[in-house]
Amino acid sequence: MDRKTIASLYADATELGGQTVAVAGWVRSIRDMKNFGFVTLNDGSCFKDLQVVVNRENLGDAVYDDVIAQSVGAALSFEGVLELTPDRPQPFELQAKSYVVEGASAPDYPMQKKRQTREFLRTQQHLRSRTNLFRAVFRVRSVAAFAIHQFFQERGFVYVNTPIITASDAEGAGEMFRVTTLDLDNLPKTKDGHVDYSQDFFGKPTNLTVSGQLQAENFALSFGDVYTFGPTFRAENSNTRRHAAEFWMVEPELAFCDLEGDMECAEDMLKYAINYVMDKCPDEMEFFNKFVDKGLIERLQHVASSDFARVTYTEAVKILEEAQAAGKEFEYPVSWGCDLQTEHERFLTEEHFKRPTFVTDYPAAIKAFYMRLNDDGKTVAAADCLVPGIGEIIGGSQREERLDVLQARIKELGMDPEQYKYYLDLRRYGGCKHAGFGLGFERLVMYLTGVDNIRDVLPHPRTVGNADF
Amino acid sequence: MDRKTIASLYADATELGGQTVAVAGWVRSIRDMKNFGFVTLNDGSCFKDLQVVVNRENLGDAVYDDVIAQSVGAALSFEGVLELTPDRPQPFELQAKSYVVEGASAPDYPMQKKRQTREFLRTQQHLRSRTNLFRAVFRVRSVAAFAIHQFFQERGFVYVNTPIITASDAEGAGEMFRVTTLDLDNLPKTKDGHVDYSQDFFGKPTNLTVSGQLQAENFALSFGDVYTFGPTFRAENSNTRRHAAEFWMVEPELAFCDLEGDMECAEDMLKYAINYVMDKCPDEMEFFNKFVDKGLIERLQHVASSDFARVTYTEAVKILEEAQAAGKEFEYPVSWGCDLQTEHERFLTEEHFKRPTFVTDYPAAIKAFYMRLNDDGKTVAAADCLVPGIGEIIGGSQREERLDVLQARIKELGMDPEQYKYYLDLRRYGGCKHAGFGLGFERLVMYLTGVDNIRDVLPHPRTVGNADF
Repeated sequence: MDRKTIASLYADATELGGQTVAVAGWVRSIRDMKNFGFVTLNDGSCFKDLQVVVNRENLGDAVYDDVIAQSVGAALSFEGVLELTPDRPQPFELQAKSYVVEGASAPDYPMQKKRQTREFLRTQQHLRSRTNLFRAVFRVRSVAAFAIHQFFQERGFVYVNTPIITASDAEGAGEMFRVTTLDLDNLPKTKDGHVDYSQDFFGKPTNLTVSGQLQAENFALSFGDVYTFGPTFRAENSNTRRHAAEFWMVEPELAFCDLEGDMECAEDMLKYAINYVMDKCPDEMEFFNKFVDKGLIERLQHVASSDFARVTYTEAVKILEEAQAAGKEFEYPVSWGCDLQTEHERFLTEEHFKRPTFVTDYPAAIKAFYMRLNDDGKTVAAADCLVPGIGEIIGGSQREERLDVLQARIKELGMDPEQYKYYLDLRRYGGCKHAGFGLGFERLVMYLTGVDNIRDVLPHPRTVGNADF
Repeated sequence: MDRKTIASLYADATELGGQTVAVAGWVRSIRDMKNFGFVTLNDGSCFKDLQVVVNRENLGDAVYDDVIAQSVGAALSFEGVLELTPDRPQPFELQAKSYVVEGASAPDYPMQKKRQTREFLRTQQHLRSRTNLFRAVFRVRSVAAFAIHQFFQERGFVYVNTPIITASDAEGAGEMFRVTTLDLDNLPKTKDGHVDYSQDFFGKPTNLTVSGQLQAENFALSFGDVYTFGPTFRAENSNTRRHAAEFWMVEPELAFCDLEGDMECAEDMLKYAINYVMDKCPDEMEFFNKFVDKGLIERLQHVASSDFARVTYTEAVKILEEAQAAGKEFEYPVSWGCDLQTEHERFLTEEHFKRPTFVTDYPAAIKAFYMRLNDDGKTVAAADCLVPGIGEIIGGSQREERLDVLQARIKELGMDPEQYKYYLDLRRYGGCKHAGFGLGFERLVMYLTGVDNIRDVLPHPRTVGNADF
């Protein structure tokens, strides 16, 4: 008999009521009432469990005792009658007729029913997705990823897989991981004693990408609208709740588009993802709202239905300075020219505007070389999107499309123009107004779930000292 | 006036006929007929171009001469009336009323109208997607990627981002790229003279992943059905048309599923992707069929509508031996126990079965340690899918779920069981029958487009000695 998923039982319960069906899943708990018992089974197809009723009389003593003796975590399959139970909390249960042990579980199974700390569960990454929390987190992560793809594909954007291994440094500053096939115990050297990268796999030093933006621009200036969605890397030696060494980024790039159009796209995308996940994952969202972050659903609904605030950096600094003057204490004092810290970002979005907020037109000195210089000569057409509870979730900008301005900027910063030949070519051959942004995908998942540590939204997080599993 | 994409002109032509619209795009060619001229414009939103008619009388001499003097590759925007032309090859043209140079193009623009070799275009990766061939390839790549996501999401699979940086070697054999933040010019050493990886970012040696399968299994045994879709890496020093150092893999993993269910899923997925791309990209497919691979569409339609052939390795070897005996010449002779070469795979799928073919139950000795041992004790429950023109496109297997059999196999191969602790845990705690496969995404794109070199289906290919752009 073909197995049915528990999700399909919930979807087709009316039709399946009274019928014999086959299911399989992992035991979450077993209760023995001597002559009958309950097995709570989850097969991962949905957040909800299935209650299986085992009856001593129907199954016989041997089979009944065998079921009841199974350990939490065991993989079992059952055939039985799906009995609708409209007067109970769950809409149906399965009256078992037969059962098979697909795989027993050892008594030292680490995912026992009792409440475990997230710190402990991080040591059990291969099993933690069997808990309610991680079952919900990784389903939402998957659904949110698809929402992002669907949003862009519906709008005709081309998905571009920009390279992971790169010989360039998109930000001009990031701390990067070196990629090599050289034998580190026996490094080839040049005559002057340096590592001889001409013998490396690519014939030169290569790193893991920190951003696909520069390459995405190549494709935006062919396809108009493109996006990337892939892993990016930062070798930052920082141990915070918001940083991982390996994380996924979404980087759309839009030709014939200015900063205003860029912000509209970012706002539409966030709202689309929120609505999509709330629609597809109601059980998971209810769980987060109840056990992780009370008020989450209301906050997300508010965001999905309200216009994002917009404020220039210069105005934002004034707001922060006024707050300081009125007694608000910041760890880092604010003045024009400084980079905004998370505490400032959260004040703006949580306390002042009380909704997602775009801060635009930052000082050129604190932003990347490729951002378009404004007419004031000191700010650039950048827009960071701040959201309550997280701070910056999106960083975007209009790109400098003027060849001479970009060349001057590269020179001013002491960068090597030769390394940016291709990037400059885009301005030589039909360059045009264009803009884009980067969304840290894990930050979106944190925002959608209320989970406050990036280690708990990555399947197998990589942070300083951690590359297990 | 809001810009309309050329795709939207084609979609809404009837409605827009006679109206004034704004467009922007890149010049593909300009023809000057003295008193009027034609600008062929493409904005990347679809495969088709837009013909813009410029008229000296309407625009005035200065503007007309300015348009005509533009170079190929320039980014121009126009406002004009969309005139339906039902009696011409193209359904409409734009009668220009005004125009703006968004970005001029230099006369040395490398993407001139003349036919260029693919080898030359590989040196122009930042511009080659403006040609017909690469515009079609990278659109199909994007649409095929979305088809894969949609196929799995519609079926309730959870998308899992398995880690890129890893301390384990999934295949037990792959040639891997080392990832490090150690200063190669000044490597820290242990007392016994080896590289001191305890000082590296992760505190131990790490590499780029060759497969996300082992981690995907963690999630399959929580969620039932999962898939990965991300970059994988091989540091193989091989320069073939089918191998790149960095490529994207799709790796579904299905719990409570045997090899038969695995093959059904693979076959359904391939057919879904073919149908989806043929439906969404008719212009691109027609282009490939005409200029790249005559017969492509017919072949794909045949595949989408026919059952894939199935043959055991043992039977396949017999077929190949009989072909040899009948005079077929292979570079590598065939006998039971040998690995099948591309020439053998192509003979089976192209000449013998004339359709995609699953070869199953390979000798254990030539397959990975995690494949489930068959009852004959010498073959494993593996299934490779071969397709005409490519050879192997999918490699799958049922996984060994029996703890004792897997432990024995790991020992037999001299592997370190400690490195596979988590993997073995999955067999200790509710292990179950499960299976999965890996699809080389670039091979799928090659198959869909008829393009025969992997360098031409990767946006910025990484191969030995090549990490440009």
